[in-house]
Amino acid sequence: MIGRLNHVAIAVPDLARAMVQYRAALGAEVGPPQDLPEHGVTVVFITLPNTKIELLHPLGAGSPIAGFLEKNPGGGIHHICYEVEDLAAARTHLQAEGARVLGDGRPKIGAHGKPVLFLHPKDFNGCLIELEEI
Amino acid sequence: MIGRLNHVAIAVPDLARAMVQYRAALGAEVGPPQDLPEHGVTVVFITLPNTKIELLHPLGAGSPIAGFLEKNPGGGIHHICYEVEDLAAARTHLQAEGARVLGDGRPKIGAHGKPVLFLHPKDFNGCLIELEEI
Repeated sequence: MIGRLNHVAIAVPDLARAMVQYRAALGAEVGPPQDLPEHGVTVVFITLPNTKIELLHPLGAGSPIAGFLEKNPGGGIHHICYEVEDLAAARTHLQAEGARVLGDGRPKIGAHGKPVLFLHPKDFNGCLIELEEI
Repeated sequence: MIGRLNHVAIAVPDLARAMVQYRAALGAEVGPPQDLPEHGVTVVFITLPNTKIELLHPLGAGSPIAGFLEKNPGGGIHHICYEVEDLAAARTHLQAEGARVLGDGRPKIGAHGKPVLFLHPKDFNGCLIELEEI
């Protein structure tokens, strides 16, 4: 069912510093910051040959990243995102297997403008999984 | 400098259960468990179209994963691994940029039989980074 690893998302306390680290120290291709007010985050995409790293920083009040950074002030890996072809079918299958979908279980439009769902980390080894329909 | 994302490593408290989750619930291609006593881990590779997920479980006394699972009993993302062409050159460059290499700074032979180094998570947004020479 799951296809490509679309991205690994890393919550960072200092976006400018993280961009310099990835550009100068790691020599990667780092895109510009993009504010996504409807998601409460500023994102920076790092393009690798086979996938992307998504740097996440809180934007505005009530950001979904703020609590994570309170618990992990130095930052940390926030989630990984797998691509699926049919998100509704994936959800039905996962729920039948006993996995919990976060929120009301309905797909939302994610940071890339495509439908996404998140799976409960307690059902997947403490790892928050995003599924994105491609 | 960094190339492909070689893998995302997830430390799991119950390897058999994690294998079932990835095979049955997520429908992924899950390989057999491999004991790597010299690394103190049992690993399972999940093959995605563009990269790999590496499930890690402690093997024997003094496993490098044991402390992580004590702090995160439900499991969690342990590290991400980027490929580099020249590990010695990468190390020299990273140290010149102020990044710390873990251990004595010399490459070790990693779980895939190739030279690896780990970078200090405090220098990279709380994210443990492995560099593997390909």
